[in-house]
Amino acid sequence: MVIRPWAYAIWEHLQAALDERIKATGARNAYFPLLIPESYLRREAEHVEGFSPELAVVTHGGGKQLEEAAVVRPTSETVVNGSFSRWISSYRDLPLLLNQWANVVRWELRPRLFLRTSEFLWQEGHTAHATREDARAYALRILDEVYTAVMVEDLAIPVFRGRKTERERFAGATTSWSCEGIMRDGRALQMGTSHELGQGFARAFGTQFTDRDGARRHVWQTSWGVSTRLLGAMIMVHGDDAGLRVPPRLAPTQVVVFVARAGEGVSESAGALVDELRARGVRAEFDDCTEVSTGRRIVDWELRGVPVRVELGPRDLSSGQATVARRARADKQAVALSEVSEKVPKMLDADQAELLAQASVLRDRLTHTADSEVEAADIARRGVARVRWSALGPAGEDRLLASGFSVRCLSQPDGPVEDLDRPEVEALVARRTDDRGDEKRHALFPERD
Amino acid sequence: MVIRPWAYAIWEHLQAALDERIKATGARNAYFPLLIPESYLRREAEHVEGFSPELAVVTHGGGKQLEEAAVVRPTSETVVNGSFSRWISSYRDLPLLLNQWANVVRWELRPRLFLRTSEFLWQEGHTAHATREDARAYALRILDEVYTAVMVEDLAIPVFRGRKTERERFAGATTSWSCEGIMRDGRALQMGTSHELGQGFARAFGTQFTDRDGARRHVWQTSWGVSTRLLGAMIMVHGDDAGLRVPPRLAPTQVVVFVARAGEGVSESAGALVDELRARGVRAEFDDCTEVSTGRRIVDWELRGVPVRVELGPRDLSSGQATVARRARADKQAVALSEVSEKVPKMLDADQAELLAQASVLRDRLTHTADSEVEAADIARRGVARVRWSALGPAGEDRLLASGFSVRCLSQPDGPVEDLDRPEVEALVARRTDDRGDEKRHALFPERD
Repeated sequence: MVIRPWAYAIWEHLQAALDERIKATGARNAYFPLLIPESYLRREAEHVEGFSPELAVVTHGGGKQLEEAAVVRPTSETVVNGSFSRWISSYRDLPLLLNQWANVVRWELRPRLFLRTSEFLWQEGHTAHATREDARAYALRILDEVYTAVMVEDLAIPVFRGRKTERERFAGATTSWSCEGIMRDGRALQMGTSHELGQGFARAFGTQFTDRDGARRHVWQTSWGVSTRLLGAMIMVHGDDAGLRVPPRLAPTQVVVFVARAGEGVSESAGALVDELRARGVRAEFDDCTEVSTGRRIVDWELRGVPVRVELGPRDLSSGQATVARRARADKQAVALSEVSEKVPKMLDADQAELLAQASVLRDRLTHTADSEVEAADIARRGVARVRWSALGPAGEDRLLASGFSVRCLSQPDGPVEDLDRPEVEALVARRTDDRGDEKRHALFPERD
Repeated sequence: MVIRPWAYAIWEHLQAALDERIKATGARNAYFPLLIPESYLRREAEHVEGFSPELAVVTHGGGKQLEEAAVVRPTSETVVNGSFSRWISSYRDLPLLLNQWANVVRWELRPRLFLRTSEFLWQEGHTAHATREDARAYALRILDEVYTAVMVEDLAIPVFRGRKTERERFAGATTSWSCEGIMRDGRALQMGTSHELGQGFARAFGTQFTDRDGARRHVWQTSWGVSTRLLGAMIMVHGDDAGLRVPPRLAPTQVVVFVARAGEGVSESAGALVDELRARGVRAEFDDCTEVSTGRRIVDWELRGVPVRVELGPRDLSSGQATVARRARADKQAVALSEVSEKVPKMLDADQAELLAQASVLRDRLTHTADSEVEAADIARRGVARVRWSALGPAGEDRLLASGFSVRCLSQPDGPVEDLDRPEVEALVARRTDDRGDEKRHALFPERD
C-alpha cells in the first residue's frame, strides 16, 4: 500500500486530532523497536498461539543468518513489556501511560486497501496501573474521550461502543472494548479497540511494583489502538457516486477557489478570496488551471472530496457574486463576493455536522431490533440487528458466524456493560466489512478483527 | 533503541520544525511500504553493489518461505521510483516533490545511541524535476532553507555546508551536499545530506515525461534526509557535565515551576505562575513533589536539560520574588514574582541565542586553517582543519583517512561550490564522531556516513 499525498494529509489531520486527545489523558509518546526477537513473543504463551501465519520473519541481517530470528512487529506488547519491567519499581511510577505512532506488519494474502493491508500505520497505547479499577477506567476513558470523540467529532461517524464477546476478544486481553461503525453497505467495521490486559503480560515479564504498603504486586495493564483503517471507514461511510466526501475538520484543502473561466480581474479576485479565507484560518487552495476543461477539474475536486468549491467566472464577477458548491449537500448557491469569506467558515462547520447527521440517519435506517436469533440473521442480511444477548449466547453466536454474521459487540442501551449476564445486554449482529470468509477463534493481535 | 518520552518529545518538536519548512518548499508527505522486494534493489546496479551487509532480510511471511525475499527498507529510492515511473507522464506532473517520515533499518554490529543504530527514524525526501538545474536548485534549497535553518535556528548548532568528495558521495548520487556539525570533542558529525541523483534512477526505472516540445525525457531527481541522529548532535554539542541542555525551541518543557520547600501559599502561587506562563504560550510544568529532596529534583531537571527553572519557597514568597535558574548560562537570579511570566519568554529567546553563540565559539575555537596535508592532520587530532582542496586531492584524502581523518566536505568560503577544481575550494578535515574504524569506499545509502 502506497499512501499518496492527499490520503496521507487526511491521515496527518486525523493523527493530530488523536494525538491531542491522547496527550490530554496524560499519555506521552515514545518509540520502541520494529524488530522483535522471536523469543520475546514466546514469553506470553496465550498470546503466541498460532499467530505465525501473520508474521513477517527476518532471518538474515548484517550479511549472515541470524542466530535468533526477529519478527517485524505485529504489535508491541511484548517489547513494551520488556521495558516496563525495567522501568517500573514503585507505586510512584504508576500509572505509566505511553503511546507509540508506528507501522506494523501482519501478513495478508488478500489485502484490502486501508482495511486490511500487510503493513499499516497506527497508534498503539500501552499503560500500567496499580489497580484493576484504574486500568479499566483508563481503557474506557480512551474508548470514550479519545476514540469515540474523534470518530464522532472529526470523522463524523457515529459508532456503537461495547464489549467484545469471548470469541472476538483479543487473546492477550481479559476484556476488549470496541467502537463499531456501520458502513454505507450495512456492514460493520471495527474502528478501534481498547483492551484491559489484566496481569497476564505483567506475570510473563515480571513487571511488579512495591505498593504503598510495601508489598510487591504485578501491574494491571491496558493497550489500545486505531489505524489507517479509519481512512477506510471515512471512505465507506461518506463516499458517494462522485467520490470521496472528506469531513471539513480533516480535509487538507477545505475550500478550493475555482476560476471557472478566465476573464479580466477574475484571477485577481479569486486570489484575494484565497488570502481572505486563509486569514480566517481556512485551508484554502487556488485553482486557475483554465487550460484544462472546467468539467474535468470539477470532477477531480469532487472525487477528492474537498468540502467547498467557490466558483468564479467573468459573469459572476460582474454581478458581484460567486457560486458556492458544497460537497456534503450536493447543492450550489450564489453568495455575494463580499460575504464569501465570512460565510464559508460557517458552512464548513455546518457541513461537518451535516455529514454526521447523514451518517446517523443511515445507521439508524440500517439498524433494527430483533427478538430472536432467526430474526437477527434476517436483519443482518441487509443491515445491523440489535438483539438480546440472552437470546443468543455463545452457541447462537457460533451459529450466526457459520452463516456469515458476526456479533460485533455487547452493550447495554443505557450505560456501560458491567455484566454480560444481565438480561438487558444487547448484541450487535452484522456482516463484517472485511469478511475474509474464514473463521478465527480469537483476534490474535489487538485492534484488527 | 527505545526512545523514551522525553527524547521522543524533543524529536516531535524537531519533526514539526522540519515538516513546516519542508512543506514551505512545496513538498507533500506520503507513505511507501516498509518491505521492498529484493529484485527492486537490484534494478539500480550501482546502488546495490555490496550493500547486503547492511540489510535485514525477510524470508518468511504468512507462515511459509517467500518466493522472493523482501528487505526492510534501508532507504526508499527504489520503491519510490517504482511509483514515480507510474505517476509521471507529462511536464505538467513536474516537479513532483514528496517527503516521507519513516523508520529504516541498516544493520549495525556496533550501534551507538542516536548516532548509529540499526533502526532509526528519519524523513526522506524524493523529488523529480524536468531539468538538471531545477533539481540542483531544489537540492540546495533543502540544504539551506530546511536543514541549515533548522540546525541553526532550532537546534542552535552552527554547521559547515558543502559538497561531499567523490569518495564520500552517496553511491546513487551525482552530487551529495551535506551539513557538518562540530561536536564538543572536536569531531565532525554529518547531520544531514541532500543529493542530486541525476538520471540514474530514472533510467533504471524508466521514469520519463513528455516535455513541452513533445520529446520523451528522463526526469532529474533529488533525495535528502535527516534522522534521529540530530538528537545525538544536540546531546554532543550542548550537553555539559550536569547533563543535557535542550534549546528552548525544542524543549518539551521549557520552564519548570519548582516548589523548593512547602509552605503556606507556595503551591498556590507556583500553580498560578504555571497558568500565567502557559497563557503566554510557554510550555510550563509544575513540580511540587516536596517529599523528594530538593537537591535530587534539581539534579533531575538539570539532567533533562529544561531551559529555565523558577524556584519558589516560603522565603521567596514572603519577599515577593522567585529564583530563576537558567540552564544555558548556569546562573541564578532573583526576579520579582509579578514580573516572572513577562520575563521568562524573553529569557527563553535569549537562551536559544546563547546556546547558538556558545556552540559557535566552540566551533571557531576548534577550527583552524592549515596550509598542508601534514598540518591538516595535526590540527584534526584535536579539532577541525580547513585546508585548500588543491593541497590534498583524492590521494591526500586517502592518506588522511588511513590515519583516521576524514574530508567531511568541500566548500568555498564565499559562496557555493560549483567547481571542485577552483583553487579557493577548501576541504574540511576532521575525525568522524561515529568512526567505526573501518573504511568504506562509498556511502552505500544516503544520509548516513
